[in-house]
Parts: sequence; C-alpha cells; structure tokens
Amino acid sequence: MQEIRVELAKTLKDKPVDESKLGFGQVFTDYMFVMEYTAGQGWHDPVIKPYGPISISPAAMCLHYGQEVFEGMKAYRADDGRVLLFRPEENFKRLNRSNKRMCIPPIDEELALCSLKKLVDLDRDWIPKAKDSSLYIRPFIIATEGKLGVKSSDSYLFIILLSPSGPYYASGLDPVKIYVESSYVRAVRGGTGEAKTGGNYASALIAQEEAHEQDYAQVLWLDGVERKYIEEVGAMNIFFVIDGEVVTPALNGSILPGITRKSTIELLQSWGQKVSERRISIQEIADAYDAGKLTECFGTGTAAVISPVGELKWQDKVMPIGGGQIGAISQKLYDTLTGIQWGRLDGPAGWSVDIDA
Amino acid sequence: MQEIRVELAKTLKDKPVDESKLGFGQVFTDYMFVMEYTAGQGWHDPVIKPYGPISISPAAMCLHYGQEVFEGMKAYRADDGRVLLFRPEENFKRLNRSNKRMCIPPIDEELALCSLKKLVDLDRDWIPKAKDSSLYIRPFIIATEGKLGVKSSDSYLFIILLSPSGPYYASGLDPVKIYVESSYVRAVRGGTGEAKTGGNYASALIAQEEAHEQDYAQVLWLDGVERKYIEEVGAMNIFFVIDGEVVTPALNGSILPGITRKSTIELLQSWGQKVSERRISIQEIADAYDAGKLTECFGTGTAAVISPVGELKWQDKVMPIGGGQIGAISQKLYDTLTGIQWGRLDGPAGWSVDIDA
Ligand SMILES: Cc1ncc(COP(=O)(O)O)c(C=O)c1O
Ligand SMILES: Cc1ncc(COP(=O)(O)O)c(C=O)c1O
Repeated sequence: MQEIRVELAKTLKDKPVDESKLGFGQVFTDYMFVMEYTAGQGWHDPVIKPYGPISISPAAMCLHYGQEVFEGMKAYRADDGRVLLFRPEENFKRLNRSNKRMCIPPIDEELALCSLKKLVDLDRDWIPKAKDSSLYIRPFIIATEGKLGVKSSDSYLFIILLSPSGPYYASGLDPVKIYVESSYVRAVRGGTGEAKTGGNYASALIAQEEAHEQDYAQVLWLDGVERKYIEEVGAMNIFFVIDGEVVTPALNGSILPGITRKSTIELLQSWGQKVSERRISIQEIADAYDAGKLTECFGTGTAAVISPVGELKWQDKVMPIGGGQIGAISQKLYDTLTGIQWGRLDGPAGWSVDIDA
Repeated sequence: MQEIRVELAKTLKDKPVDESKLGFGQVFTDYMFVMEYTAGQGWHDPVIKPYGPISISPAAMCLHYGQEVFEGMKAYRADDGRVLLFRPEENFKRLNRSNKRMCIPPIDEELALCSLKKLVDLDRDWIPKAKDSSLYIRPFIIATEGKLGVKSSDSYLFIILLSPSGPYYASGLDPVKIYVESSYVRAVRGGTGEAKTGGNYASALIAQEEAHEQDYAQVLWLDGVERKYIEEVGAMNIFFVIDGEVVTPALNGSILPGITRKSTIELLQSWGQKVSERRISIQEIADAYDAGKLTECFGTGTAAVISPVGELKWQDKVMPIGGGQIGAISQKLYDTLTGIQWGRLDGPAGWSVDIDA
C-alpha cells in the first residue's frame, strides 16, 4: 500500500464552542485527505494536509461536465472514548460503483479506509460530544483535466473532508412532512440514479425548493418512466409498514442503494420481521392509507439514521401517518442503529469499526 | 450597467504556432471574465483578468452537487478583419433558462454580452486565421458556497473562457458514424435535459466510450420513457431528410434547444423547404431507410455547425446514408451558416454581431 504522507498544520483552528449550533456540513476540521490521479501514473501521492481551498483549472471538467462522485458517512464518539465508523467498507465499495458508472478510475478501497482512519485520528478532538452529534465524513472525487471536449478526464482529485455536525433535521427524531413529486423526475433507468453523483442532486434542487415553499421537508420521488412507482426521498431511502409487513422499493437501477437501507433490512430480518423489497405504487400507499393499514413510514440515511414520516402529500391528498408519534418499528430501528453506531450495543460482526483497532 | 474592470497581464503567452494542431478546447487565451454572486448583494464585481487557476473551497457545492450550467459559442474572424459572434443573445437567454431549472440566479444578459465583446476584443489576436478555425467561447456558472447540505448555493462564479480551436471533428465535413443507444438514457421529461448542465454530460460519458470502442463518433439518444423516440446526439441536434421532407425531433423538454437547430429551421423555411418538428421513432427512420426514402441525416451544433451522418447503427441494423457523400441540403446549410458566421454572406438581421459595432 502507498505511504500516506502527513503535512502538519502550523496552527490549529478553534473548535466550535456551542455544539448545539453546529448545523450540518458547515464547519470543517483542521485536516483533509487528498490524492491525485494522473493517466499513466494512476492514483498517487496520498497526503493528509491542512484543510483549505483548492486551486483548479477554470476548464476543469468537473466544473463543466459534472464528472464527480461522492460518499457520506460518519465517525461516532462512544461513551468509553472509542471512535467508531459504521460499515465504512460499504461506502468505499459504493464509491467504486459510482466511479464505474461515471467513468472515473477505481480507488484502492483498503488505502481509502486506512487514510480515513488516519485522518479521523488526527482530527479526533473535533468529534462532537453532544447527543446525536457526530463527525460527518465526505469522500469525493472530481475530474480536474482542464480541457473543454466532452470525454472522461485524464486527471482527478480524491479528497476526504470532515465536518463536525449536529442532527440533520433540526427537529431531531420528530416526524417530517414529505411531498410526493409529480412533475419533476430525479432519475430514470438507464440514467445515473444508482450512482452518488452531483447531477442527481442538482436536478433535485428545484423540486426541493418548491416543497419547502409548501412547508414540506423533502420530496418523495416517483419513477421516471410511469411516474407511478415510489423511488426514494432526497437523501434517504423509504420504508412503509403496511398491515404489519415492512416494504421498501427494490433496487431497480435508479435508486441509491443506501447503506442504512441495507442495515435496516438486515436488522429487521434478524428480528424475524418480514421485509419485502418490491415495486410499490403511490396508489398502493394511498389505498393502504384509506384502508387504515399504513401504520408507519420512515426514511433511512446516514444523515438522519431513521427519520419518521408524519405526513405524505400526494397531489391533493394529505395523509397524516402515526398521529404525530414515532412508530414502534421506527423507534426500535433508530435505537438499535444509533446504539450500534455509538458503541452502546453490539451489532453484527464488522458493522462497527474502531479507528484505532 | 456595472462597470467592467480590467486587470492587465504583465506578460502575454505565446500564441500557438501551428493552427492546424489546435484541437478543440485545449488552449486558452491570456484573459478570462469573472463575476461573483453573493446572496444579498447579487452579481457584482465583473472583471476581466489574466487566465489562470481558480481557488475554491473543497466543499464548494459545484464539486459535490453539480449545481453548474454552461454555454458554448464562437467568435469568427472575417476575411475583412471583422470579429463576428453568431446570435450571442440566444446563448445568454439559454444560459438564463438553464439557470432557472438549476436554481441559479439569473445573469444580466446585456452585461454578459458587453463583457464578452470586451474580452474577445482584448484577446482578438488569439482568433485563429486557418479555415474552419475559430475562437470557442465558454461561459459557465458554478455554485461556490462551501457547505455540504443539499440546497441551492448562496454564492456563484460566472466565468467566460476563450479557446482558439480547430474543427470539432478532425475529419472536418466528412460524414460521421453514429450509434443509436438502447440501454443508457441521457434525459427524461421532468429531468434536466433541456438545461445545459454538467450532469447531462457526465451521465453520457459511459455510452460515448462504448460507442467509441465500436468505432462510432457519437451516440444518438432515445427518449427516457419508451426508449423509442429520437432525441439528440451527444452535442448536436439531429435532422433527417425523408422523402424530401426535413424532420427533426420537437423540443419536448428533454432535448437541448440548439441555436444551430433553430437557425437551420429558420433558414430552411426561408428557402421554402418544409420542416417538421415532431416525434420521430427510430423505427420510422429504419422503415424510411428500408424504403430508400432516408436521403440525408445531419447533426447541428456550434462545434461542428452541420455534421453529415454517414452511418446510423441501431441494434444490429447498420444503415449507411448518402453513400459517403454530403447531401445537397446538408451542404447548402453548411455553406450558408458558415458563410454567415465568417461574414462572407449576409444572414437575417441580428444573426451576425460585430464585436466592435
Ligand atoms: C439519494 C439518496 N438516497 C439514499 C441515501 C441514503 O443512503 P445511506 O443510507 O447510505 O446514507 C442518500 C444518502 O446518502 C442519498 O443521497
Ligand atoms: C446536448 C446538446 N445538444 C445540442 C447541442 C447543439 O446546440 P447549439 O446549436 O446551440 O450549439 C449541444 C451543443 O451545444 C449540446 O450540448
């Protein structure tokens, strides 16, 4: 494995005084990880260096043609002082799957994890202590070749940033209101929906803004072909509890394969709870609601872990769910997942990775 | 209108000696235009300054969420020394339409055109003299706010780059081979297809690479819903001549509204040639081919102007068109458009804009 060089900072920044005001992804630590790719030479020169602006060509392909991918994960501070990552190998595997779709050369997953541990270790004093707060980790790759022809870049930067963050939704585990989007489309089969790449998020901004204007926190996307089948939320996968059965849209190529989604399914199965991954139409949800069978709905994602949905709006139909309360399954999943993440509970082998081990 | 400041370079770069080796978008001039946007303050501080790298936050939203738009146009050197732009107002209008879709604040189109003229003037010695060569112009806007939450940025950079360029296809007006893409999808209604934004191009790279492997120059996209109807080529709109009628896909929301497309339609109509903008299935093209009625096919775009298509491949069906020759309509359009662009012919009022006028 390549040696990871460390350039120490001359002075360290002041840490945030009030951890309750951290917000999400707004404050950055003292260091970042950077590695370059050059055609012919491959990925080279992994280095941890002081966090700061980067200098790139104004013709860099990421600025014009969006050739870029990213990941999102967290480091958690356990009560006993350990610093834990949650299934980090899954994130680097997914990063390489995104790379493949976006014609970006694969990274060495082992080197990436090793670099991440070293980076988090150096910045460990930045991991917040407040409840539900953690160190958000953002690995990303951008195309840097400074040419304007449309083609894959022949140079890239792989960077990891760290950001001490509070809960994603200011309201914590309070149920969120979600708006079913009927005009805009996020992704379609044959497109880039299952890759974590910039364009998917850029295209979603307008729908998100329109939802906010109507006082909804996020948008629930329908499929791009028939605009009938449920896909996912802005930055979460979605689950429903219908008549005692847990259902979630199957991975069909246009949905992000969430790691919290996967962990949720695995936990539910380990509890003997039936989970179906299948095609779910929004009409089916409305019918289940009308029949009084839609007892819970929740989103899953790194940022908010489990996010109970307290209201769905589809066209003119407003569907309150769970009477403002968190459902039993949502609550048990939240407690278990956060318990494992913060090291209070033992999870399945390999889920918790101690950065010092 | 805001005053455009100019920072002169201390030394100028050497100009390319061999204009036949320019390629496309690889060499940049001495200057670039830069203007900043800050929430509350709006667009401010337009400046022309030496071309060089830009410094941005590694958390800049354009690097993660692809909030970015661009344009492509050219400056042409006429035989009598005039420097001409082709319908530049159309490009800035389209930039603002892209901005709207991508939640980017609109620019002042008049200021943009004025800045562009001033920039091209300062760099006028860079405009190549070789036949079919011109100064490629790349206006673009990127989201620069350094935060990781998914939302519209509250700061942006609007930059214009200039690049002396040769013909887009090394083979010039020789017919190109195009591959009809049946698996990957570029855009879908409700998505961002009609905006000129990075994600549309990033998602297309993989199909383009697979086409190249089969020795095809570009991909012809089908619609995202039924994968039946013709949309456009990588960086060109597409036209067919069937039984004496010119047809092109209607603007349906997922196709880029090309300025060369629009000019082509207007020219054909002014010649009394019937043009239909409508839905065209790939099956219809194959049937027309089988019936011997598909006499011409060509792409339209700023880069190559008119690009005759000499072969279409759809699944296993290979359809050579025009017997390796350029069709009469394609040739007349090419001669007329390039004639107007280089100032040899008079076009409709307003098409040619002299930067000194
Ligand atoms: C579009 C989208 N869907 C789902 C998710 C949830 O994925 P994960 O559980 O891996 O965080 C995310 C966030 O990462 C996302 O951006
Ligand atoms: C996707 C796409 N379609 C069509 C075109 C042609 O547009 P125009 O004629 O304005 O250059 C371009 C190039 O600009 C393009 O990128």
